[in-house]
Amino acid sequence: MLRTHTCGELRIENAGQEVVLTGWVQRSRDKGGMLWIDLRDRYGITQLSLEEGVTAPEVLVAGRELGREYVVKATGTVIERESKNDKMATGAIEIRVSNLEILNAAKLPPFLIEDETDGGDDLRMKYRYLDLRRNPVRKNLELRHRMMQQTRAYLDSRNFIEVETPVLIKSTPEGARDFVVPSRMNPGEFYALPQSPQTFKQLLMVSGFDKYFQIVKCFRDEDLRADRQPEFTQIDCELSFVTQEDILNTFEGLAKHLFKTVRGVEIDTLPRMTYADAMKYYGNDKPDTRFEMKFVELTEVVKGKDFKVFDEAELVVAINAKGAASYTRKQLDELTEFVKRPQLGATGLIYARVETDGSVKSSVDKFYNQEELTKWKAALQGEPGDLFLVLAGPADKTRKAMSELRLEMGTKLGLRDKNVFSPLWVVDFPLLEWNEDARRFFAMHHPFTSPKPEDMHLIETDPGAIRANAYDMVINGVEVGGGSIRIHDRELQSRMFKLLGFSEEEAQNQFGFLLNAFEYGAPPHGGIAFGFDRLCSLFGGSESIRDYIAFPKNNAGRDVMIDAPSAIAQEQLDELQIDVKA
Amino acid sequence: MLRTHTCGELRIENAGQEVVLTGWVQRSRDKGGMLWIDLRDRYGITQLSLEEGVTAPEVLVAGRELGREYVVKATGTVIERESKNDKMATGAIEIRVSNLEILNAAKLPPFLIEDETDGGDDLRMKYRYLDLRRNPVRKNLELRHRMMQQTRAYLDSRNFIEVETPVLIKSTPEGARDFVVPSRMNPGEFYALPQSPQTFKQLLMVSGFDKYFQIVKCFRDEDLRADRQPEFTQIDCELSFVTQEDILNTFEGLAKHLFKTVRGVEIDTLPRMTYADAMKYYGNDKPDTRFEMKFVELTEVVKGKDFKVFDEAELVVAINAKGAASYTRKQLDELTEFVKRPQLGATGLIYARVETDGSVKSSVDKFYNQEELTKWKAALQGEPGDLFLVLAGPADKTRKAMSELRLEMGTKLGLRDKNVFSPLWVVDFPLLEWNEDARRFFAMHHPFTSPKPEDMHLIETDPGAIRANAYDMVINGVEVGGGSIRIHDRELQSRMFKLLGFSEEEAQNQFGFLLNAFEYGAPPHGGIAFGFDRLCSLFGGSESIRDYIAFPKNNAGRDVMIDAPSAIAQEQLDELQIDVKA
Repeated sequence: MLRTHTCGELRIENAGQEVVLTGWVQRSRDKGGMLWIDLRDRYGITQLSLEEGVTAPEVLVAGRELGREYVVKATGTVIERESKNDKMATGAIEIRVSNLEILNAAKLPPFLIEDETDGGDDLRMKYRYLDLRRNPVRKNLELRHRMMQQTRAYLDSRNFIEVETPVLIKSTPEGARDFVVPSRMNPGEFYALPQSPQTFKQLLMVSGFDKYFQIVKCFRDEDLRADRQPEFTQIDCELSFVTQEDILNTFEGLAKHLFKTVRGVEIDTLPRMTYADAMKYYGNDKPDTRFEMKFVELTEVVKGKDFKVFDEAELVVAINAKGAASYTRKQLDELTEFVKRPQLGATGLIYARVETDGSVKSSVDKFYNQEELTKWKAALQGEPGDLFLVLAGPADKTRKAMSELRLEMGTKLGLRDKNVFSPLWVVDFPLLEWNEDARRFFAMHHPFTSPKPEDMHLIETDPGAIRANAYDMVINGVEVGGGSIRIHDRELQSRMFKLLGFSEEEAQNQFGFLLNAFEYGAPPHGGIAFGFDRLCSLFGGSESIRDYIAFPKNNAGRDVMIDAPSAIAQEQLDELQIDVKA
Repeated sequence: MLRTHTCGELRIENAGQEVVLTGWVQRSRDKGGMLWIDLRDRYGITQLSLEEGVTAPEVLVAGRELGREYVVKATGTVIERESKNDKMATGAIEIRVSNLEILNAAKLPPFLIEDETDGGDDLRMKYRYLDLRRNPVRKNLELRHRMMQQTRAYLDSRNFIEVETPVLIKSTPEGARDFVVPSRMNPGEFYALPQSPQTFKQLLMVSGFDKYFQIVKCFRDEDLRADRQPEFTQIDCELSFVTQEDILNTFEGLAKHLFKTVRGVEIDTLPRMTYADAMKYYGNDKPDTRFEMKFVELTEVVKGKDFKVFDEAELVVAINAKGAASYTRKQLDELTEFVKRPQLGATGLIYARVETDGSVKSSVDKFYNQEELTKWKAALQGEPGDLFLVLAGPADKTRKAMSELRLEMGTKLGLRDKNVFSPLWVVDFPLLEWNEDARRFFAMHHPFTSPKPEDMHLIETDPGAIRANAYDMVINGVEVGGGSIRIHDRELQSRMFKLLGFSEEEAQNQFGFLLNAFEYGAPPHGGIAFGFDRLCSLFGGSESIRDYIAFPKNNAGRDVMIDAPSAIAQEQLDELQIDVKA
């Protein structure tokens, strides 16, 4: 190595040693004949010192020429610092420099390479290799590294075998849009990039691999939102001869292992909540359970008092924002505006506060007297100082708006600490969801998910009511993973495809290999996949998965650093026998 | 779990226990009122036994209905076997079955699910999920799993950080042909799939990541040979502030670690051989050093005896096949045919044998008397029983033919035991190679490889003679990995692009982001990449990388199991704004 030590490892015990360090110039101070340089690498920062009259003049000249981000090799002696810096691991020492070599010069970076930078998003994306030098960004990727190693350590220790599934596969119409790859050797034909290795991992179960995992790139050609990337990473797992219970226990174990080893946090056994309860109490299939503030349905309680908004509503639902009774008119108006935004579309917000004396004061006192409001209070377990927020309207829409309002209040009341983790399982998802536009059912999870046997009698009469052996792991309102027990019976799988509108021929054409495989001894099996980017961002306490990806793409699917995608040569198009439309 | 134990774990100590096993029916024997069933899973085979008059009649009926590969759940008691099978880990016990449940029936597989199968290549590829059930195939993938875990464990323990680089990148003209992906959001533009993460790992060094690794899929759209796949896996590494020596030591450590943990083999320090020596003594930059049989050049020794073939040859080169003097005329004729094949194109093979009395008898005794042949013997360190094989002709072509002949003789003489491992480093590769068709130099490794500073004076006069800081790890005649110290200076990199025929504009357009990055403080760095599929096949003692890939493609780039690539819907083409040429 060009160095004897990293910039993060020298301590007072090393005093007196001759060392060679390499790294980047973080900053320098030239004062009263002393020149101090902070030298940085991935491991830390070490202070170099040069002194007029002591350091050789040419070395001092070289030191004074150094700019920010110059790459330097410094030779010198470790000495105890006069004024120690407790905040730095190397803060007790500095290097009295005897020689300095510039390994590479650096132009002034387009933004500050500091924890807090002055660079905007676009600039930092273009110079991502400089943004990655900043501590917070580097630490995100270090966390990601640890998450990967610990995930594999856990799964390996439990007999999971890591198998790489192919990236060049076949396009299928179900699910999101595929990225495709024209085949030169098979002109007119295309590979697709996998949205997940779903069918391959099921085939591995048919092959008897018993327990499979992979941390794998997946691809979806969808219009991008802030937390979506065209390529993303999944912890993908599948197990044979298991029940749902086995899977929940195994991956609860993984969650505990990761929290303990990566965050140093012990978490409790994961509570389980049915999809029905999640929708009823949180209006959402990924409830943030760091705080209570559960939905309370007041539909029956409030009916018949001539308040049309409530009387005509399919659902009247309330939450109790504890301790928020002091909210001002302005604050309440803001909340009203919040729920009236087009994406939520509530017609208004009704509120009531519990006064110090226990009486309730509402925005609809005209319709509801104290006796009535006391019923509200009882339903909401109100106490002095509480604020009730009430929405009314069509059930689905109102639940959705209330769900957002609940999260907003959680945030406002400081109940969503990013260092508190509240994981749970949501179970018993519906098997199907009706799509009004397509006039058919779609698989809520995917077409390979098995229905609960006890609900199978509904298949002709009320397929929408069939529950699936499907489950999601939810942490802090984020769905971090989901899976199901799969169908392993050819007949049932065919029936499912039919229910989803596939013709016999389409099913055979797209998934024939899987249907055939089921005829040669397919074991009962099930699995799960975790969104790894999202899991990392959650562990790191960030909202954005982009912060946890080394080279992310922007919302237009572009890598602005390397300028991709880009036009390709006509020769390449000719070889692939494709044309770009004018 | 549906089972209490796997089929590989029960021992005599478990006798008396009630257990539940699940697995596949390997075979059954029905004899003298006893029914034995071998139940198989990933972990092993356990024998089930059912007995007329003891086992409940309906269970016996069920047991007799089972066909090969049926998926079964068996409940019963562990008992000591009467006739133990020492070859099976579970051979001391069997399960006296009290209940049997068929979890899934199976059609008769299209080929035998046994270590030795009757299925041909095409059939096994189509039913890959059944081929994967066979022990040898499953063991290959288990070895691959261990290789992955141990590779990461080694690199993680040495402070390497695993970073995922993007799969959707930019097409570049240098190197092999890219697979491309049309962008829907950016019509007329394409992503490319990476041939390697080369530029990204270098950018990570510019970012200060110091030590990077990734086990990563790479892609090349090349015409396929037996040992090539369009998608393949690489162990990809890069380090900063290192010399070539540091890299060789680090990855020699990795090789030692893998041999020890995966194969239980201790290997010595890797010898280092220059490219020049490898070509001179083995005719090959990836010599199989499990055996000696080095080339001995006889060009000067044999000249001037009126034997035109030797007199006119640029090179006369010989090997000493020790102990092969007894080769018959027929065997020698076969070797002559071997070197005369079109791909080698030697005009003939001259041989000489050392007789028991020490005299030499050659196929060219007409030209060479005993005195002359004694000189051959001295040069080749011949002993009684040795066979000398001599080729003559143009240097490059003759070395190539002799290299193949040497390997052939090594095989024939049993010197290439697949359980013996002889790794080495080949170093000092040329920087450039001249391409006669393109009339320009190409980078022998890639355009980012640094020249040896001491050779830089040749850049104007004899660029082909410049040696690079490049190295390959070779094991048993297979190049398993290669890398180089990179250029980290913008000027030198620009000069290299120019030497490779890039215009200023092309270089900026294709690699501008890297050239720019070099201006902001790029550290000295270098790295290596290992062909992971090939490394696994070598560790497993196989010639074919396909045996170590779960779902490989055939030589036409097709996955015949899922039938990919395939036509896609017109709607997809329209969205991508591309046409397939008629």
